[in-house]
Amino acid sequence: MSSLKECLNAIVPQDEAWRDKAMDHIHDLTMPRWALGRVLEIAVDLAGMTRTLDLKTKRKTILLFAGDHGVVAEGVSPQPQSVTVQMLQNFSRGGGAISVLASSVGANVKLIDIGVNADTSGIANVLNRKIAFGTRDMFLEPAMTREEAIRSLEIGIEMAERFSDETDVFATGEMGIGNTTPSSAIVTVLSHDIDPRAYVGRGAGLEPERLRHKAEVIQHAIERNAPDPEDPIDILSKVGGFEIAGIAGAILGAAKLRKPVVIDGFISTAGALIAHALVPESAEYMILAHSSVERGHVRMAEILGKKALLNLDLRLGEGTGAALAMPLLDAASAIMREMSTFSSAGVTEEGL
Amino acid sequence: MSSLKECLNAIVPQDEAWRDKAMDHIHDLTMPRWALGRVLEIAVDLAGMTRTLDLKTKRKTILLFAGDHGVVAEGVSPQPQSVTVQMLQNFSRGGGAISVLASSVGANVKLIDIGVNADTSGIANVLNRKIAFGTRDMFLEPAMTREEAIRSLEIGIEMAERFSDETDVFATGEMGIGNTTPSSAIVTVLSHDIDPRAYVGRGAGLEPERLRHKAEVIQHAIERNAPDPEDPIDILSKVGGFEIAGIAGAILGAAKLRKPVVIDGFISTAGALIAHALVPESAEYMILAHSSVERGHVRMAEILGKKALLNLDLRLGEGTGAALAMPLLDAASAIMREMSTFSSAGVTEEGL
Repeated sequence: MSSLKECLNAIVPQDEAWRDKAMDHIHDLTMPRWALGRVLEIAVDLAGMTRTLDLKTKRKTILLFAGDHGVVAEGVSPQPQSVTVQMLQNFSRGGGAISVLASSVGANVKLIDIGVNADTSGIANVLNRKIAFGTRDMFLEPAMTREEAIRSLEIGIEMAERFSDETDVFATGEMGIGNTTPSSAIVTVLSHDIDPRAYVGRGAGLEPERLRHKAEVIQHAIERNAPDPEDPIDILSKVGGFEIAGIAGAILGAAKLRKPVVIDGFISTAGALIAHALVPESAEYMILAHSSVERGHVRMAEILGKKALLNLDLRLGEGTGAALAMPLLDAASAIMREMSTFSSAGVTEEGL
Repeated sequence: MSSLKECLNAIVPQDEAWRDKAMDHIHDLTMPRWALGRVLEIAVDLAGMTRTLDLKTKRKTILLFAGDHGVVAEGVSPQPQSVTVQMLQNFSRGGGAISVLASSVGANVKLIDIGVNADTSGIANVLNRKIAFGTRDMFLEPAMTREEAIRSLEIGIEMAERFSDETDVFATGEMGIGNTTPSSAIVTVLSHDIDPRAYVGRGAGLEPERLRHKAEVIQHAIERNAPDPEDPIDILSKVGGFEIAGIAGAILGAAKLRKPVVIDGFISTAGALIAHALVPESAEYMILAHSSVERGHVRMAEILGKKALLNLDLRLGEGTGAALAMPLLDAASAIMREMSTFSSAGVTEEGL
């Protein structure tokens, strides 16, 4: 297993030469130039990440990190914390939205307890990497120690490495009641802001009149813990979450392994922000699945310099948006591998 | 085979009771209310169209109509007309973008020559329903007779009926050099407009400086032939195309059969406009796959009162956008058939 430091040092940008080769090949395909738009952008990205034109996307692994949050004590979520473990059981039995959508697109889901506030040892198919029974309440104290933040990141890296041999494409997912709150806190701090109101949304269904309270809790947590905007690990430990750190680590691991990682919605993108803040080049291995309904996601995409593939008014998380975007990667791969060229097909190129 | 009149009379709206049943079932699924946004809208639509919650989307048939256009003599397209038949050969061999993407999503493509200006009898897998060797030049005279327009529509209906037993979901596709020109003409006339400039785009790669010429050709064709905006068959015959009429017919056939039909890009949506103008309720069976780059597509969606699912900067046609949208229908179907409910999963519903 790589230490965090080893992993961070091993991440290199996409390969420009392979991007150019992909572009040349695309220009020879039997269609008007660049007529498949963003599908072709995916193809070029995959070539740059994986250093081949023989793009493979069949084996898909969604790493789903589950964790709980002390800050739910402040009334930031309408659901009781027990829903986290209930949903994990639901996923384990194949009945959750992510179970169904992953199966629909041919992806495997790995369930990882990185900090659930319940004993999950009796739940089938859950990997136990629990750091603690939930984070501490960031309204009162740092959510975790710096050591715990580093260990969470390393668990994410470990998961990417562990499943690398069976994976062409990684994706991120999560479960954790209350986890839009630390996610909004992270994007606020990384925007060098204290007022989180522009980045706070309704999560899984908070009443609109409670939004202001949620923003006040976040603002107080930031003021009290004073995370250093230039130190992503400090941000994670002060106002983050175990599953968000796990996601950040998984992204860093995928980037080190030079494999694409499809980023799900608001919480996953908070993890992506941490990965990006640690190693900006890691963003070159990310594919943003969709634009979340959650306020603040637009700002997150802006920081990453990325445009999401889908816009389907999703606000579920779990990895569902990432699953829905997967067929577009399959499409990009198929276009590169199977489509005929002008020379091979005897099609007049003139004007195309 | 149904006559056009029989078909038009047999189209009824979606079933509201089945839409309500779908909505009730969705509210019992283990996720926050409506958290999968547009995927759930698809599910409700499919239930309303097919009168069941046991949504089936596995068997996908893309009806690809190919035709040529006399108006290419006016220099509205950078490609020679011979590319239509060359691409049909390419599709027949499985090398076109639509061949590859259909295969990627598990769809079958049916190639239908409804008016190609070449002998296609030697091309494998092409159904011969040729009405003529291309339309006439609408700059000089009506593109086709009223009888030919009706026959084209009936061929579309015939194709939907013919493949109905092997199809859960239909989609439209086309091939025809020059066919953005009649498509722009159709949306112009249906907008009760004469000036087509707001609806004219670069098609498969027209030089920007030729756009004005293309618009002038269309405007002249409209002024010369004076299609009646209240008579969709008159519009088709004066400024339409055989493959556009075939698509319109296929949509009407699918609507009559109460099966969903995924509408591809600019040209397919021109066909959808004709179907909608003939029977407004037919729009209730349409799913708009994507927002085309082609100018005028936004206006088309507006007329239909529909919002496209994808926005991927596509401008290829063939049915490629429809193929890319198909997995979202599979996702909607899987959610309705496989996901657990609150009562079955033992998940606390409170607040969700």
